[in-house]
Amino acid sequence: MASGSDGSAQELLRRAEHGVLLYGITPPSLTTPPERADEIALATLTRLDSVALDGLIVYDVDAESDRSPATRPFPFMPMMDPADFVDRHLSGWTRPVVVYRAVGKYTEAELSRWLTEVDADRVLTVLVGAASRHQAVKTRLADAYRVHAGLDRRPGIGGVCIAERHVGTGAEHRRMLSKQEDGCDFFVSQVCYDLDHSRDLLSDYVYLCRDEGMVPRPVILTLAPCGSMKTLEFMSWLGIDVPRWLHTELRRSHDPLAESYDQCLSNARALIGFCRRLGLPFGLNVESVTNRKVEIEASVDLAREIRELLH
Amino acid sequence: MASGSDGSAQELLRRAEHGVLLYGITPPSLTTPPERADEIALATLTRLDSVALDGLIVYDVDAESDRSPATRPFPFMPMMDPADFVDRHLSGWTRPVVVYRAVGKYTEAELSRWLTEVDADRVLTVLVGAASRHQAVKTRLADAYRVHAGLDRRPGIGGVCIAERHVGTGAEHRRMLSKQEDGCDFFVSQVCYDLDHSRDLLSDYVYLCRDEGMVPRPVILTLAPCGSMKTLEFMSWLGIDVPRWLHTELRRSHDPLAESYDQCLSNARALIGFCRRLGLPFGLNVESVTNRKVEIEASVDLAREIRELLH
Repeated sequence: MASGSDGSAQELLRRAEHGVLLYGITPPSLTTPPERADEIALATLTRLDSVALDGLIVYDVDAESDRSPATRPFPFMPMMDPADFVDRHLSGWTRPVVVYRAVGKYTEAELSRWLTEVDADRVLTVLVGAASRHQAVKTRLADAYRVHAGLDRRPGIGGVCIAERHVGTGAEHRRMLSKQEDGCDFFVSQVCYDLDHSRDLLSDYVYLCRDEGMVPRPVILTLAPCGSMKTLEFMSWLGIDVPRWLHTELRRSHDPLAESYDQCLSNARALIGFCRRLGLPFGLNVESVTNRKVEIEASVDLAREIRELLH
Repeated sequence: MASGSDGSAQELLRRAEHGVLLYGITPPSLTTPPERADEIALATLTRLDSVALDGLIVYDVDAESDRSPATRPFPFMPMMDPADFVDRHLSGWTRPVVVYRAVGKYTEAELSRWLTEVDADRVLTVLVGAASRHQAVKTRLADAYRVHAGLDRRPGIGGVCIAERHVGTGAEHRRMLSKQEDGCDFFVSQVCYDLDHSRDLLSDYVYLCRDEGMVPRPVILTLAPCGSMKTLEFMSWLGIDVPRWLHTELRRSHDPLAESYDQCLSNARALIGFCRRLGLPFGLNVESVTNRKVEIEASVDLAREIRELLH
């Protein structure tokens, strides 16, 4: 595959030294007819056309019914396989793509085939484990890493990092280093609203790498505006920490979308400065956690403003 | 007392609507000869001359040996009475002064006399209770409030608010409201390094006031640069929360003073925006928690930069 002006996946990771910008999307629902999926892909790319993204992230959404005993605020809709969506409908996108794989959904043979056949010059894969220990899985994360490590030609893979988990365990930075030793070339964070929790994790990770003589890998930090109480409830269900004062502001505000947008932009500014000071290669990833139009539009505007901050 | 161009204490509190700037100092040690105390006062005012402060804060430092079982990182030196220092040596300062009173050090009669005789047009008093429940005191805070409430002419008084206490109890905002009902016209915070803890308290306080139909009183937020590990240890002894990542940065940095300075400035910017958005009258108070020259000079520079931010 040519790594033309649109850049290869490897180039994306190299350019993370100065900060890269990604945008995260979910595939349409499983029952979407092909022509409609083409339309959705086209509408997405048209909307993102002006943002000058370095890459797209396509999620692999699982029901995650074990995540929390609470009811999922938005009902789960089975979605098209993210790789199928990229291959069949997103052909208009020629820059790098980060495709998520909830490894528990696939057999080792399926994962192995996918990782062998993937266009490694353009596609990076994030391998994601189960949301809880109790989830029934076809493949565990450790086995997925083993499958990847056993391939003759290993495509770039990434891992998830969760600042909220670091608050509880104080060990998420060690887990990142261990994923790195298992082959991860980069990390993507959960949606960040608690800036100090994110900074704690990034700082612990960078200094652990330094102390162990390892080179820290790029960390892609995710931001998403929140336009309603229901979205806030969903973020909480997803395990995203929102500082108490911000929770109050969003709840009391006449315009929670504008409030959360400002906070995301301010967090982006802080994270860019922080990563640069730490010498940590990084990216920012913007998304909407719902498919509500106002939140999607706000997320695209946010990405555009973050592009300016990165220059 | 004329409230000339230098402004009265009441005017200071009124102008907190737009944000005021104070600087906090401690009196010289008890054994300082009067001429030397004059020199110290003059040097302080000369150093602060270019900052365009709205007011000075003069602390009443207590040994606080009950604060923590850990050894005090800087030995305690008994200090000159703050009011005596203001009266006898700080006559060159004609703008408002906030004088701290560790009420446990004084009898009710002494407090009553001081509150009666104080120049209420220029001096505000912060009444401070014991640092721990076990400290032997001559007067309890509740009794000091009672003494104040019983006066014919009540000078302006303030209370201390501690965001760190709010993390544990979740009730510091109610305590502020209760102090307000006991006569407090304003609050002064402990040194703020954990921005979210401060924002949590301010947000809870403002919305509690709003829900109870009360008008929130000005909150003076304190910032102090930290130039060494020993100062950091002292701040920790004082009960000041420093986010984990910042603690690491300060510990690992070749120039912790510059790191902490940048963080204080960034926190000032965030707090100014936050208070204005909340509609909370506020002030910023800058100080050095040690008497080290570089930290004092950095604190004066910080005050000067915050003055620009407030414009």
